[in-house]
Amino acid sequence: MGRLTGGPAPRKARMSTREPKQERSRATRRRLLESAIDCLAAHGWQATTVSVVAEQAGVSRGAAQHHFPTREDLITAALELMTDSRLELIREEARGLPDGPGRTEAVLRRMVEHFTSPLFKAALQVWTAAAADESLKQRIVPLEARFGRAAHRVTVELLGVDDSDPVAHRLVQGTLDMARGLGLADVLTDDSARRERIVLQWSATLDAALRRSPSP
Amino acid sequence: MGRLTGGPAPRKARMSTREPKQERSRATRRRLLESAIDCLAAHGWQATTVSVVAEQAGVSRGAAQHHFPTREDLITAALELMTDSRLELIREEARGLPDGPGRTEAVLRRMVEHFTSPLFKAALQVWTAAAADESLKQRIVPLEARFGRAAHRVTVELLGVDDSDPVAHRLVQGTLDMARGLGLADVLTDDSARRERIVLQWSATLDAALRRSPSP
Repeated sequence: MGRLTGGPAPRKARMSTREPKQERSRATRRRLLESAIDCLAAHGWQATTVSVVAEQAGVSRGAAQHHFPTREDLITAALELMTDSRLELIREEARGLPDGPGRTEAVLRRMVEHFTSPLFKAALQVWTAAAADESLKQRIVPLEARFGRAAHRVTVELLGVDDSDPVAHRLVQGTLDMARGLGLADVLTDDSARRERIVLQWSATLDAALRRSPSP
Repeated sequence: MGRLTGGPAPRKARMSTREPKQERSRATRRRLLESAIDCLAAHGWQATTVSVVAEQAGVSRGAAQHHFPTREDLITAALELMTDSRLELIREEARGLPDGPGRTEAVLRRMVEHFTSPLFKAALQVWTAAAADESLKQRIVPLEARFGRAAHRVTVELLGVDDSDPVAHRLVQGTLDMARGLGLADVLTDDSARRERIVLQWSATLDAALRRSPSP
């Protein structure tokens, strides 16, 4: 828990009577969602049950089941809300990025970080389980499409390209497929050194292809 | 079974006494390896046991266990031998490809087909299981590295690029990461129409980046 937010959640705080009930409930929910992501990334789909996640989050099984009756409810909510908040964070951070040369590289680096995060590793466990489980697949396919569109929209916005131009549209798509492939290459081993060289090269190639000047 | 070879294996043939024993044994082994790949791709790691694969291949459990004492033995052998033979097939088929414009596109299409095959889907199930299973991970990491090198070597050879040039080296790496990402995007839904447009665009961009003339 806490790997996505940078530190452990203040577990004791939820017992304080000064904290309004609604806020406590929201904090409990958030803690369950973060634990679900960490548990999926570390232990896989089979091991990620509501009970295991509740225990890891320091939440009673009853409270966890009040929020999320089934494992599928917990896991789809976790993927959905954590992806939304992560993409929102990327968008906000990118407000500080420089324009001109170097911007493409900075944007690519952030998108590639997105696809190598514990959140991507968690999603990969769920996609893979869904490939062999028809009912899970029916819940996951619309989510996957939504994530794909959201990542595309953020990348287009941050790169400042015209998505109605078919060349730019396909280059952004291909870039996100590459980022997804780099994510996959990082699942079993630390691939960061190789990845960094590819990001540098790809920034220059993408800039040239988008008819900007290449990054330095 | 048979999806990788284009049709069902001749199950009855293995009972013929005219067939030499060694050849029968080799055919049995091959049938088990193909069934393991198909079973992994369709049903995932958990469901792919030696017994299930043996039944699907029409082989007795005893005979299967003679060839492959454990599930890990069966699955690593399946990934290893099927990947080798698939890359060899790509290399052979590519002898008939035209030189000049259009070659990059034809090569990319073949590599992308490799990463969207049942063999890739099977490997993905194993990589994902290995992320949450330390002992499986130790067997799979060297295989993954070997596959990565083999795919890189074949792509360099078929594109006819100079791999000692760092730009070409990284562009081939990035291309294979994109192909891997396209494979991942095809696991839950048929992504072939989108993929085709990306392959066309990427062939032109790669050709330009490698300082050839773009494909038509």
